[in-house]
Amino acid sequence: MSKAFVAGTGMTAFGTFPDRRGRDMFAEAGLAALDDAGLGPEDIDEVFYGNFIGTLAENQGHQGPLAAEALGTTAPSRRVESACASSGLAIRDAVRAVRSGEADVVVAGGMERMSNMGTAGATDGLARAADDLFEIRSGVTFPAAYALMARAYFDEFGGDREDLAHIAVKNHDNALVNDHAHLQEEITVDDVLESPEIAAPLTLYDACPISDGAAALVLLSPSYAEEHGLDSGVAITGSGHGGDTMALQDRQSLATAPATRDAAEEAYDDAGISPDDVGFVEVHDCFTIAEVLALEGLGLYSYGEGIGAARRGETRRDGDLPVNLSGGLKAKGHPVGATGAAQVAAVSNLLTGIHPRADAVSEDVTVGLAHNAGGTVASAAVHVLEVTR
Amino acid sequence: MSKAFVAGTGMTAFGTFPDRRGRDMFAEAGLAALDDAGLGPEDIDEVFYGNFIGTLAENQGHQGPLAAEALGTTAPSRRVESACASSGLAIRDAVRAVRSGEADVVVAGGMERMSNMGTAGATDGLARAADDLFEIRSGVTFPAAYALMARAYFDEFGGDREDLAHIAVKNHDNALVNDHAHLQEEITVDDVLESPEIAAPLTLYDACPISDGAAALVLLSPSYAEEHGLDSGVAITGSGHGGDTMALQDRQSLATAPATRDAAEEAYDDAGISPDDVGFVEVHDCFTIAEVLALEGLGLYSYGEGIGAARRGETRRDGDLPVNLSGGLKAKGHPVGATGAAQVAAVSNLLTGIHPRADAVSEDVTVGLAHNAGGTVASAAVHVLEVTR
Repeated sequence: MSKAFVAGTGMTAFGTFPDRRGRDMFAEAGLAALDDAGLGPEDIDEVFYGNFIGTLAENQGHQGPLAAEALGTTAPSRRVESACASSGLAIRDAVRAVRSGEADVVVAGGMERMSNMGTAGATDGLARAADDLFEIRSGVTFPAAYALMARAYFDEFGGDREDLAHIAVKNHDNALVNDHAHLQEEITVDDVLESPEIAAPLTLYDACPISDGAAALVLLSPSYAEEHGLDSGVAITGSGHGGDTMALQDRQSLATAPATRDAAEEAYDDAGISPDDVGFVEVHDCFTIAEVLALEGLGLYSYGEGIGAARRGETRRDGDLPVNLSGGLKAKGHPVGATGAAQVAAVSNLLTGIHPRADAVSEDVTVGLAHNAGGTVASAAVHVLEVTR
Repeated sequence: MSKAFVAGTGMTAFGTFPDRRGRDMFAEAGLAALDDAGLGPEDIDEVFYGNFIGTLAENQGHQGPLAAEALGTTAPSRRVESACASSGLAIRDAVRAVRSGEADVVVAGGMERMSNMGTAGATDGLARAADDLFEIRSGVTFPAAYALMARAYFDEFGGDREDLAHIAVKNHDNALVNDHAHLQEEITVDDVLESPEIAAPLTLYDACPISDGAAALVLLSPSYAEEHGLDSGVAITGSGHGGDTMALQDRQSLATAPATRDAAEEAYDDAGISPDDVGFVEVHDCFTIAEVLALEGLGLYSYGEGIGAARRGETRRDGDLPVNLSGGLKAKGHPVGATGAAQVAAVSNLLTGIHPRADAVSEDVTVGLAHNAGGTVASAAVHVLEVTR
């Protein structure tokens, strides 16, 4: 398939900014991406915007036109919502638009503002990514859902809490140099194990924080990129999307993520690569166990092998397959609607060398991957990025 | 451009069904569309689903996977949200997917459930399609916003309340034979003029009802349609999308709808037709004045000429350009997330002759158009449908 060229990336700091409006955060990220691309609002053909619970958090639906206005344009826009995979799918739809030649210059990104709702309010809002009838009303919050998945994984494949703790430690460590990260705090395995239990076997430090923030990319059609000399750098060369049942109870196993597998297979096929070609990845680690499910779903580890990867050092930044060099959702933060775009932006910046952790990516690495999941992986979006220079 | 073939359509009755779950309504509409197409859940490549305020009305975000499950599949899905234009844009993105050949069989549609929120709750929810900071907090509900637009129109181009009343009478009359319509009730111009004022100059009968319901279509790629002999019937041949500022205060005029104009120009160009080729239309008449803004934005009437069209009989079903033969949002009803899909389904069924008002479409008419608007037309989606047999 043809390429969607990444012309620019932008993001706000991720953190707790209860007084920052969503439109203002998206303006900061989107205008930074445009500036990075050397383009202006008048160049934008379409805006693809991911957001999950702005209708609750900001009393604001119909955020597509507001996102466009924040960039100084009334270009056509839409909001794409698929819970925590909202901007991963906004990027997927944007990739389709530029690859097919229906648009030349698009901004794809997302935003979430949650801290203004308070922890209880945000947790309540986030629960709407699960099945209201068959999960939420049974008390299945997201920590509980991922705890069920961790237990199922331990039962089916082995592993223990200490394996998970190594994932948290690794991702916190990666975030230490990332000024945009929500949590820049070194932690130890003992810190994780001794932190308060939130849903057994998970403890507080197995979970990502509740973050506010925005991220955006400028994507170009092949013809526009060539015509304007913007075709050397990084491009999205593969896109995949997978689905699963909404409620965990309807799945054959809680220890695997078939939606990730389906999305990955489509993305690899689309890019004409295999998992062996991937040099590093940003994956959806809303909880530590989620990183394991992601690595195995992506075919980067066999089932049962992913759990020990961080402990063995393989996924640390000096390992063979660095995972979540940005700090991941765990430490960089997880403003839901912004996460998928922030992941793709991080992969692009790691490939071009402008990311603070780019020194962990060796010069011969030309392929990175971003994996974004919605709910308990009822939705998954996978993108392959490659150096085109 | 290539065609997106319409293989099947389905919709629930529109009305007040506070106890019907959204997923059940979408299942009814989507399975009817699949049945109409002679296809099953195993054939679905992707689901494009429009919904506006399910996060509030049903405590349920992430409705894409639920919509897919309702059809018996875990195929990839996403929710597209652009207020009242949500499923018009879901169809646009679905059209892109099948035209580009990235998918062969997709279901595109939408659902809204609002009556369970009560009238005040639904009005409050619907207000989220406007700008929270600069409109909602100033008391600009949607009746108020369209009243401002009606006043601006009268000031700029003339016309009066009686002109608007003829639009309501026409659309109610069209709905009389449509068993799926929310309001099957004959009304007179005096009924409209004497109904309670809701926001001057608009009265109750200038407004559409608050409806529940779902609608869906099965769309096919050209190659799949040809291979399976499903390429004779109706196809979407043109798609357009326009944007505008969110808040009315930021527009140069409230008496026109530039987003509709932009969407229409793109759709006509895409289909290779002109407004003169269009035989009949379904337009977004959430309030009577909205039908006027739509007809003029679509280039079917000059500015200032659309207001008298119903009164002069031109847009009645025996006129030169039948408008809203289904009854429109005004009488068929307006379950927000379902409306865009219901419009496209109505146009398709009017062209194939299976709609209860199909006798109003003469045999030499081969082109119909559907127009869906979000908010105060900050978003607009236009689709051109043509007979392909």
